Amino acid sequence: MQCNFVSVSPESDFSIQNLPFGVCTTSGSEAPHVTVAIGDYALNMATLAKLGLFQSIKGLDAESVFSKPYLNDYMSLGRSVWQAVRHELQDFLSNTHNALRGQISASDVSVVTPLREVQMHLPARIGDYTDFYASREHATNVGIMFRGKDNALMPNWTHLPVGYHGRASSIVVSGTPLHRPNGQRRQDQTKPPVFGPSARLDYELEMAYFVGPGNNLGTPLTLQQAEECIFGAVLMNDWSARDIQAWEYVPLGPFLGKSFGTTISPWVVTMDALEPFRVPQPTQEPEPLPYLCDESGSPAGYDIHLAVDIKPKEGGEFYPLTRSNLRYMYWSLRQQLTHHAINGCNMRPGDLCGTGTISGPAEESFGSMLELSWSGQKDITLGDSGITRKFIEDNDVIRISGYCQGDGFRVGFGQCVGEILPAKRA
Amino acid sequence: MQCNFVSVSPESDFSIQNLPFGVCTTSGSEAPHVTVAIGDYALNMATLAKLGLFQSIKGLDAESVFSKPYLNDYMSLGRSVWQAVRHELQDFLSNTHNALRGQISASDVSVVTPLREVQMHLPARIGDYTDFYASREHATNVGIMFRGKDNALMPNWTHLPVGYHGRASSIVVSGTPLHRPNGQRRQDQTKPPVFGPSARLDYELEMAYFVGPGNNLGTPLTLQQAEECIFGAVLMNDWSARDIQAWEYVPLGPFLGKSFGTTISPWVVTMDALEPFRVPQPTQEPEPLPYLCDESGSPAGYDIHLAVDIKPKEGGEFYPLTRSNLRYMYWSLRQQLTHHAINGCNMRPGDLCGTGTISGPAEESFGSMLELSWSGQKDITLGDSGITRKFIEDNDVIRISGYCQGDGFRVGFGQCVGEILPAKRA
Repeated sequence: MQCNFVSVSPESDFSIQNLPFGVCTTSGSEAPHVTVAIGDYALNMATLAKLGLFQSIKGLDAESVFSKPYLNDYMSLGRSVWQAVRHELQDFLSNTHNALRGQISASDVSVVTPLREVQMHLPARIGDYTDFYASREHATNVGIMFRGKDNALMPNWTHLPVGYHGRASSIVVSGTPLHRPNGQRRQDQTKPPVFGPSARLDYELEMAYFVGPGNNLGTPLTLQQAEECIFGAVLMNDWSARDIQAWEYVPLGPFLGKSFGTTISPWVVTMDALEPFRVPQPTQEPEPLPYLCDESGSPAGYDIHLAVDIKPKEGGEFYPLTRSNLRYMYWSLRQQLTHHAINGCNMRPGDLCGTGTISGPAEESFGSMLELSWSGQKDITLGDSGITRKFIEDNDVIRISGYCQGDGFRVGFGQCVGEILPAKRA
Repeated sequence: MQCNFVSVSPESDFSIQNLPFGVCTTSGSEAPHVTVAIGDYALNMATLAKLGLFQSIKGLDAESVFSKPYLNDYMSLGRSVWQAVRHELQDFLSNTHNALRGQISASDVSVVTPLREVQMHLPARIGDYTDFYASREHATNVGIMFRGKDNALMPNWTHLPVGYHGRASSIVVSGTPLHRPNGQRRQDQTKPPVFGPSARLDYELEMAYFVGPGNNLGTPLTLQQAEECIFGAVLMNDWSARDIQAWEYVPLGPFLGKSFGTTISPWVVTMDALEPFRVPQPTQEPEPLPYLCDESGSPAGYDIHLAVDIKPKEGGEFYPLTRSNLRYMYWSLRQQLTHHAINGCNMRPGDLCGTGTISGPAEESFGSMLELSWSGQKDITLGDSGITRKFIEDNDVIRISGYCQGDGFRVGFGQCVGEILPAKRA
């Protein structure tokens, strides 16, 4: 399928096979509204709805839903509506006989805005945010550093997707700078803790997915229901202050080492767009308990190329840090969500779940500086610049990107970018 | 000060000195709206606003704010507005010369509804929910059971209020029954985990407080600012499935052992009503780091009598389980909130923070069955009924209540009640 409404380069993240959703404001419109990206352009979904593009879709009040400053209402509608909207959009963009094509040109500013002119916002009002810990390589690497090789993976790790609740209020959209957090840390175990800016500030390469319809309190989800629930995915940087985290996290888990900020990319790539890129997840041994046992036949992994780059404060260029892939993830998205709801916990439209750091077997795939510098024991070399890092320094910029490679097209996620500003004086 | 608008018994939780806020529906009104309790009655704040009671208060659009189905907008306004509203209400209820008193009688159903006829709802849309672990006695008891007497308190515990993010979606209002959660547990450490209903279901006696105006991301709060931020407090039962929790919680903390449900009482008692009941908090040794060092002069503890009772499935009567007091809390509310924001984490109106289980030194003050039955090693005797418990059984009802005792009046919290229904088949 080809887009013939605007031209789309084969390297564009936003092909007609993608059509990711976001929320934006443009110079020409006051209120944030729902948008879909195609090539280098943002489509105004509220205007397309007014023009009647989605009028035949049952169960969708398109004008209302796409005029909202968040995607929650759309996310709540479920897969049949999502697929119908995708179908209408693809027809509009590829079929010159589409009824609306005569009324709208690609230079119509009420419908089409160049991406460089739009301001992207958080795609949803995130009710609850949960972060998992689902890469075996990451959990093993961290475990070796903290507890030694023989006790690297905790006994529960291969039986359930370990997860914890995160802070929703401090999730920000790509491009939002964050201040280095202050906090307590205790480097010298023989002395009292000290207070000050984190000295071991890190990124974590993650993806995150938005929940659609969800479930009622007390009613668990099956694996198949969980998969149907997932609207789409974004890139996520789960910034982590390792020294604050190390001191605070026993026994109740990460708290202030994470909650100073979490950055997500603005475009939500739908699971329908990711469908062609399914791959088997890693073999699970021991076999999980029946409620997590995946016998649906459809592979539960996704082949998504992921990259983390750094623009150090010293120079104007991005240098590679991590090259990973979502396919390394041991616990699948649907296993994570099924586990999350097995106790009856209710999911709501717009809830966000992070995968946890996505590390693979090779060193270049390690998804955090903690792993790349092996807890600060060695330097990370930035290309041939002569610049090194153990952790993030003030005014470094971290950029995550990701895409699926199709035959002549990409389904990409755009970027998840953030600069670390110096700590404020507390 | 005496209420002469309706009669209020000296034993009533809802004296004129209290005036707690909630959200209710009555038989006579369709939409949930803001209400204030006085004696055995609920005042319709939306109607009082329409009648002009709050018209002189600057910065308050009372008709709009009190017509909302949640308190978030009111919570966002800050202490000077809260105090002005309190003043107007107290004058209306106690002063027969109040301008409105001629227009409204206590039998006016548009303003006054008996409490037994109102349906209470969650008082706010809770964005983020955080739970602390701030009772030294509770942390010590649990620590002894899990790690032995010599390592009971973790090294960080006396330096910072340990806390973690909880699940906001599954917070329910008093009276909502909850199903016993299913989940993974591993009783026999030599065998794989098993799946099924929790066999060690517990309550936790807590209080929780709602954040008002909050702070911007990146901007910490001082102790004084944190105290100004707190709108009011409720009772909370942090239901806990000990077996699920024990298996899942390493290394990222409690998750499904808690997120199946958390119950709060519907009436938010304002910090202004609690002001006369301040008491010193326990001595802190070692002295906390400066940002947590409390030199304001106003005592940071509160003398709030707390009780937990159980109505066992076998009988129709409530029997005592716990008799405790918020004054035992080692870390004060303002220390908790200051710590929470010290890394720049932003608080939003309607965010909820739990204190953690409130245990005191005496056994009768232990705030959970885990402590009372010493991890199931001994029976808890229910009065002289001959009935015993180690943990909660299906169709047991747990009731938390609490009050401050003034001179001839009470400032009480009402009740936080929940029944545990049998597990659903997963």
